[in-house]
Amino acid sequence: MIIVPEREISGLVSATDCFTAVEQVFAAMARKSAYNFPVIREAIGHADALYGFKSGFDRESLALGLKSGGFWPRNFEKALPNHQSTVFLFDADTGRCRAMVGGNLLTALRTAAASAVSIKYLARQDAKVLGIIGAGHQSVFQLRAALEQRPFEKIVGWNRHPQALSRLEAVAAERNIPFEAVNLDRLGAEADVIITIASSFAPILMANQVRPGTHLACMGTDTRGKQEVETDLVAAATVFTDETKQSVTIGEAQHAVGKGLLAAAEIVEIGAVINGDHPGRISATEITLFDGTGVGLQDLAVASAVVDLALAKGVAIKVDF
Amino acid sequence: MIIVPEREISGLVSATDCFTAVEQVFAAMARKSAYNFPVIREAIGHADALYGFKSGFDRESLALGLKSGGFWPRNFEKALPNHQSTVFLFDADTGRCRAMVGGNLLTALRTAAASAVSIKYLARQDAKVLGIIGAGHQSVFQLRAALEQRPFEKIVGWNRHPQALSRLEAVAAERNIPFEAVNLDRLGAEADVIITIASSFAPILMANQVRPGTHLACMGTDTRGKQEVETDLVAAATVFTDETKQSVTIGEAQHAVGKGLLAAAEIVEIGAVINGDHPGRISATEITLFDGTGVGLQDLAVASAVVDLALAKGVAIKVDF
Repeated sequence: MIIVPEREISGLVSATDCFTAVEQVFAAMARKSAYNFPVIREAIGHADALYGFKSGFDRESLALGLKSGGFWPRNFEKALPNHQSTVFLFDADTGRCRAMVGGNLLTALRTAAASAVSIKYLARQDAKVLGIIGAGHQSVFQLRAALEQRPFEKIVGWNRHPQALSRLEAVAAERNIPFEAVNLDRLGAEADVIITIASSFAPILMANQVRPGTHLACMGTDTRGKQEVETDLVAAATVFTDETKQSVTIGEAQHAVGKGLLAAAEIVEIGAVINGDHPGRISATEITLFDGTGVGLQDLAVASAVVDLALAKGVAIKVDF
Repeated sequence: MIIVPEREISGLVSATDCFTAVEQVFAAMARKSAYNFPVIREAIGHADALYGFKSGFDRESLALGLKSGGFWPRNFEKALPNHQSTVFLFDADTGRCRAMVGGNLLTALRTAAASAVSIKYLARQDAKVLGIIGAGHQSVFQLRAALEQRPFEKIVGWNRHPQALSRLEAVAAERNIPFEAVNLDRLGAEADVIITIASSFAPILMANQVRPGTHLACMGTDTRGKQEVETDLVAAATVFTDETKQSVTIGEAQHAVGKGLLAAAEIVEIGAVINGDHPGRISATEITLFDGTGVGLQDLAVASAVVDLALAKGVAIKVDF
């Protein structure tokens, strides 16, 4: 069995590797040759933790397995990340455990890769200004991945606590792109692409703040009750997602669907666009919205890429299991 | 992180260790301090495999995690067991993966321990004859574990293919206990305790074949549609189980409940008997039936015991993960 510890991941895998892996598995999902199993997520009644699994199988790549872990809100007191996860890959031909891969950095990278895939396929080609709502740990990964997809000339950011925006400003400075902290009205008025990566239980961005032609990647809603944008904005947009089943239950679309403003059948899985089976954006004035809920197959895809790279570079730990 | 490979398990853990671990976790389940998460089981559409997870958390022992694996029906062609599983334990205080333990032998031992627990608490003290229906791989484990619970003087066995009974006969010979291959009428007429461990989709043992005072441990039904005994027998018995939720959906009780012959509320979780909150058997003429469905907490309990033993004996592989 192959083990790739968390400490090796950053030296092995690039954002580009993750982009490719996620793009491929979204395409396989839309071809119905890869599917996610039901998600388990439990408040375990200890350490205030949420624990569970995301899992699936890709019949094309033969990636089979799960990511297990969750959220331990007091880990920071122990100098550990609050989000903890480990990916386990199984041999689809025998059922034996094939590999165990640290999943913390990979989770950040695969989530960022999903919004980047949506920008590649759905943002206007002439997009110049990137807006980011939210400035937590994950926002930096989102920003870096987004910057690979269009030659953005400016970044505008908003966060409930503005001091955290320094994180995004630092990334912008690395790339020599101007960064400005703005209010939500200005963010919506200037941005061609908006990534929302706040953890919110009430809408932050309203429909009347967003211009025609904008692409939104809503990446922060992965739980029943969470919401980042007004339902009228979801209703006004052409809605794309990673997996419709999750989009309508735990994703950003849950509220618009709940109010009858959007039907599940109207939501397009992004893989259909990747495969050329859906045109994606059809006009320069259309608002496109990608509801990124995060699926187990993304985790399996990036972990599989890591295993290949670790074997190639000789850093995989091999255990006779 | 601690790794205990499959090859180490047989040298580390005894049937008695597993009995203790399973008895404790059944008791914790009945105290509502341990619970199983929903089971995932998927026909993956590759290699005819069934793959999935059983998982849970015990707030008393802090055992948290899952067993993953499944059934690969063509593994025998590769000289591998068809049933493949691996147990992953997580640190309940941090969410980090704590241990990985080979789960094949453990699955057999924890399943056998469950029927043995039921015999300890539900069989008549004067039980003399043990009956076994089914003579597959798992039957030997069931037999060995049962023999620890009462001073059985005779074993009677039945299997669809009688030649397989030689497995059970060999175990009986080790213990100098007479073994006889019998038909089902004689098995029911002679046995004080009956273990059913056939994989069957139609009832094998009928109500009129079973005497008053018998204890049955039905261990072979873990899937919707499977059935080992006639529903009239389930209806005539006082029914105990590991977990009622599984008993009524995928266990032996599913059919009696489906026909309205038994209500879920009438089924007693065996942990209540272990805890002294239910009297268990109340007369020498009562038929008791334990519906053993197999829960993730059993796997976590025995794997936790293995990790402790492996650390104590210095055979755990430690990986800086």
